[in-house]
Amino acid sequence: MAIKEGLRPGGRSARVQESIHSAVRALLQEQDRATLTVPQIAARAGVTPSTIYRRWGDLPALLADVAIARMRPDGEPADTGSLRGDLRAWAEQYLDEMSSEPGRNMMRDIQACATPGHCVGIISGQLQIILDRYPDESNPGIERLINLVVAPTVFRILFATAPLEVEELYRLLDIALAQ
Amino acid sequence: MAIKEGLRPGGRSARVQESIHSAVRALLQEQDRATLTVPQIAARAGVTPSTIYRRWGDLPALLADVAIARMRPDGEPADTGSLRGDLRAWAEQYLDEMSSEPGRNMMRDIQACATPGHCVGIISGQLQIILDRYPDESNPGIERLINLVVAPTVFRILFATAPLEVEELYRLLDIALAQ
Repeated sequence: MAIKEGLRPGGRSARVQESIHSAVRALLQEQDRATLTVPQIAARAGVTPSTIYRRWGDLPALLADVAIARMRPDGEPADTGSLRGDLRAWAEQYLDEMSSEPGRNMMRDIQACATPGHCVGIISGQLQIILDRYPDESNPGIERLINLVVAPTVFRILFATAPLEVEELYRLLDIALAQ
Repeated sequence: MAIKEGLRPGGRSARVQESIHSAVRALLQEQDRATLTVPQIAARAGVTPSTIYRRWGDLPALLADVAIARMRPDGEPADTGSLRGDLRAWAEQYLDEMSSEPGRNMMRDIQACATPGHCVGIISGQLQIILDRYPDESNPGIERLINLVVAPTVFRILFATAPLEVEELYRLLDIALAQ
């Protein structure tokens, strides 16, 4: 999944990726995700299956990548003018997205990846953009933010009767910022 | 899953449950979990399929219940003589168990349940036993402990390249206890 970040926009690699993403999106409108296969996607995208395997490793990784790309059309986290504000805005949007049906599908796809770990890289990248905006402020670091804010958000969606309340999300963020 | 807790040990209900659990364990030794069916389990246990559906709702809930019962043979969390010590011991054991293959299977089964939320009840029950041992000490409460200690443990196993380090687990617990 981290591969995406190294692509030159508009380059050959980016065009191949976009044609594969489009093929997945089109096929998902026509059939159930459980019946999708790599050769089918390759045929629709006009590439060989090995192009897909080389780039993503397996089908769940590709599906997760498409789901992530779909959910983050604009890329940069909102800039509210303060570290706490940016993190709150990001965390609240993340909670919303992960609670949605596409978000839940994405989490399922990521877990089915051979390398689910690579996907934390995307979250880390978003958080790093925010932290880099405030170089003079002390911050809890990416790992702590993931443990204190991202993890409870995801855990509650997957395993609890109700998602995290926004108030508790804010409190967890305050705890992280106080460290 | 919460149903289990209401059973009288040794009662008819408990015996029926034990025969169903045994049937699942035996069948899992003979065949892949993906091929297990409720009628098969019912036949082996000498009950009707509707007994299973009535009690567990669906097959993943039953599999999750068996996995949980398997991983918690002794029930009571270790008593080390201090709140921090008990929570550390519990959290460390939980991290070990969830990182194991049966732990990962259990998390997969729970997510496939129609009612995954009920399963947090089991964790809450364990933590409540610990908190009840120290009624005079202030504590962060079950929800905060789940958000700050359980959630990062599970999140890292499911989505990161490596499980939580025990040092970070202890630090997260200290953060929870300081609230």
